[in-house]
Order: sequence, then structure tokens, then C-alpha cells
Amino acid sequence: MELAMVRDSIVPLTQLDPVYLDRGTFFGDGVYEVVRSYRGRLFALTEHLERFERSQREIALRLTDTAELRRRIERAFAEAGLPEAAVYFHLTRGSAKREHTWPEGLEPSFFLTVTALPDTAGIKEKGVAVATHPDWRWKRCDIKSLNLLPNILAKQAANARGCFEALLVDEQGRITEGASSAVLAVVGDALVTRPLGPEILPSITRHFVLRLAERAGLTVVEKPFTPAEAVAADELLLAVTTKDVVPVVSVDGRPIADGRPGPRTRRLAAEFAELAGA
Amino acid sequence: MELAMVRDSIVPLTQLDPVYLDRGTFFGDGVYEVVRSYRGRLFALTEHLERFERSQREIALRLTDTAELRRRIERAFAEAGLPEAAVYFHLTRGSAKREHTWPEGLEPSFFLTVTALPDTAGIKEKGVAVATHPDWRWKRCDIKSLNLLPNILAKQAANARGCFEALLVDEQGRITEGASSAVLAVVGDALVTRPLGPEILPSITRHFVLRLAERAGLTVVEKPFTPAEAVAADELLLAVTTKDVVPVVSVDGRPIADGRPGPRTRRLAAEFAELAGA
Repeated sequence: MELAMVRDSIVPLTQLDPVYLDRGTFFGDGVYEVVRSYRGRLFALTEHLERFERSQREIALRLTDTAELRRRIERAFAEAGLPEAAVYFHLTRGSAKREHTWPEGLEPSFFLTVTALPDTAGIKEKGVAVATHPDWRWKRCDIKSLNLLPNILAKQAANARGCFEALLVDEQGRITEGASSAVLAVVGDALVTRPLGPEILPSITRHFVLRLAERAGLTVVEKPFTPAEAVAADELLLAVTTKDVVPVVSVDGRPIADGRPGPRTRRLAAEFAELAGA
Repeated sequence: MELAMVRDSIVPLTQLDPVYLDRGTFFGDGVYEVVRSYRGRLFALTEHLERFERSQREIALRLTDTAELRRRIERAFAEAGLPEAAVYFHLTRGSAKREHTWPEGLEPSFFLTVTALPDTAGIKEKGVAVATHPDWRWKRCDIKSLNLLPNILAKQAANARGCFEALLVDEQGRITEGASSAVLAVVGDALVTRPLGPEILPSITRHFVLRLAERAGLTVVEKPFTPAEAVAADELLLAVTTKDVVPVVSVDGRPIADGRPGPRTRRLAAEFAELAGA
């Protein structure tokens, strides 16, 4: 008899809850998004749904109707009634007996959570320390997939060094992005960030920050930079959905400028807050 | 109220089955093994458990007692009563609200299946076709983790081309390994395979095949080779737990030698069968 064991309990395979056979768990065979709300309104849901659809396409997932996804997200968000919420959602390829290749017609599995966002005023006021880590990720980081083991290992290592985030560094010694954020530097009047490509996520927060650059008196320059260049920058910042603009005040213990959040970063954060209705 | 949505049903987060918050699904934050049996006996369980313990260490998982794991595996295998079985098992870091970094003291989640192995006499007799694919995986493929999206995408692409397996090719144009197998070539009296390193799994079947080389009149040479060199080889073979030695008869449609399984591969398969008690 084919069977499964969950912890130390045996269950016939035919009676097993399909959630245990989710290809999301066996292979990380799925894609996800995180959207946040400001004062009871979801920000940039359309952009997140567009990226989500692209991610589904890139891993050849059977497309789930985006209008239906939007309805589910809006319904769950309304039901939760949390003004400052993170809405996480993923689609996996579905549940099946574990085999690398997937059967035709598998029903994708949708899962979502709505959780309260912690207050980020403190880290936005004081800025955060970051630590570099080799970028061990796969070659398609433009897909927002559930294969995040290198990300969490890097972030945990940074945390163990008292840092908020890991800056991932490629084999050419250049920063790709944070373990769960985009990275931008202010150098004179330039807002410098790595151009989009398969090695980084097309960050939606980055997208909006770049759109706001002009209002902060900055010109966008898309080119990669090294940790040494990051330390030598006038200001350094992270862009991440759940916290939008986060000032970085040190890299591997070396302070950026005077070690305090800079004026351009504050300006970008203020512009972002206005845009998002924060 | 914090909540989850499973498909289209809303559940308060406090009432959600923790399996839905498994870090294995959110991040692929776990490691696994597959062991097989021949005629009612598990083969190389000790070696698999040793590798499993190493994988746990490499991702800083709270170690689960190997003797206890062995007891569970043997109990489940005995209960299933399948003489030719695949035993799959994984440990994830456990269930928690989704956050990249993990809390102290999380209880790892163990999951196992015992399933009947399909008969492989046909593919061992006729050999298999394989197709090359860029190796998109992360930089720590020596860890047998649940981050397998590049593997399944490569294998699915190979399947779509009528092939059994994908041979992954690194940026230097050399084969690393198969999407779920090791790759070896017979060139004259040499059995050639890529040396172990972070870019390939320390395959247990490969290990035993190398130990049997001498009996097949072959000398082991550990060096990388290209798809062109694979096609020019006298014989090509895969090593994989569930099917042990599988002859490869073509790469990207180009036949190996006369396009039939060669004598050294057959000999290695026969020696392996004897060793494993098949």
C-alpha cells in the first residue's frame, strides 16, 4: 500500500490531504506577490497582478484569471479590515504525486494571507545597517518564485551580524539587489540602480521610486555598482513593498556619509508616502 | 483580523492548519532524500541519511536525530509492504508566519511517502534520449534542497522534446549534471564524470557506480565534459537512485556511437544490480 507519513503518523496515500502533495513544497513550483495597503487602500495592486501574471507565464503555470484573483484579494483584504496590511498570495502548480514533470490539467493552488504590518517609523527614521553576502541565487531572479532558500540564508546571515538586510553580490563583485529588496544609491544628483535583467526582480517599489526621482532633484542612472561604491555614495536606500523607502546607514559596518539617513532619501520617502496615500 | 484564504475560502489565521504556513512552501526552506528498495530491502539508507544530515547542517536546520529518522523510514517502508519502492522524505524548517528570517526554536516538519516504483526494464534495455538545457540553478547544488524550480523547468522542456532527461550545461559550456541524475561518459577505458563541487549533488548512485568501475574494466577520471564530448563518447549514462544505471543513446537528437546501450554501461548496470540485490 502506498502511504505517507506526516511527522510520525502513517496515512494511506489515497487518504492524504492533497496539501501535503503540493508541488509548491516539493519543488518550490509556484510564484507569489506581496501587496500592501496604506490607510485602508491597497497600493499598486494592478502592477503586482501584472507582474504575477508574467511570473505565471515564465514558469508555464496554467494562467489563473487575473480579474478573479483581484476579486479574491479585494474580498480577503476587506474581510480582514486592517488598514495597514500586507497581502501575501501565491499560486503553485497544484498537488500531485511527486514527479519532476507535471501532468496535464493540474489545478493550480491559490493561497493568501492578510496580516498586520509592523510599524516601520523607527527604521525609516534611523535607517538600517546591511551586510553583503554572495548572490547564490538562480539565473532567473526576474521571476518571483517560491525558490527563496538563498535569499533567506543570506538574510539570516545578515541578521546574525546585527543587520536588517543582506546585499547580494554577484561574481563580478557588483550588488544585484537585497535578499528581499531593491538597492539604490544617491551619488551627487544621480539616483543609481542596477538595470533590470534576469538577475534581479522587476521591483515595483523601485519602479515608483525611479518615477519620483525628478521630484527629489535626481536623475536616474541605471548601472550596477559595487559594495565599495555603495559605501562611497552620498546616500543608500532600499525599496521594498512592505516598507517602501528604507534608508541604509552602513554596509558591513562602514557608515554611508555621516551614518544617518540623507536628505534625498527622506525626500523620496516623503514623495512615496504622498503617492501611496500613507 | 488576520486571515488566510485557501483557494477561495477565508479562514482566520489563528484557525489555519499550520501545514499552510510551512516554510517549505513559502521559501523551499527544507531538504530531502529519495531512497529505493530492491526486492524488499532499502539500498544505501545509511549513505542517504548521512547526506541528509549534511544537507540539514548546510542550511542550518535544527538537526533531527538520524536514528529516529531511520526508525520512521523503516517503519513506513515495512508498513507499505512494497518490495520495489521509492521512499521520499523531507524536513522543512517548520511552520510560522511568513518572514524571511526564522524564529528560534521552530520545530522542523517531517514528511515521507512510500510509493511503488515503475518498472524500468524498458528504458534500461533501450536507453534514453536526453536534451541539453542551460543550468539555471543556484550556486549550492551540493545541498539537496526543495528549491527545484530550475530542475523541473529543464526536465519539462526536455520532455517536451521527447527526451527523458535534461543535461544541464554551465556558463563554460560544460555539463554539470542531469536535472535529477548524475551524468557519466565512457571514453575508451575511462569512466569520465564531473568532480564533486558546489555545482552538483554528491550523488550516491554515482558514488557506487564509480566504485564498480574497475569491475567493468574502467578507470575513473573526474573532469567536466561538454555536450559535444558527450556525443563523441563511446557510451553515456545517467546515475539516479530510482533507476540506478540508465544508458543514454542520444543527446539533442545526435546518437551516441551506434545509438544503442553500450557494453560497459550494461556491465555497470549488471554490477550495480548485484550490489543492490536487484
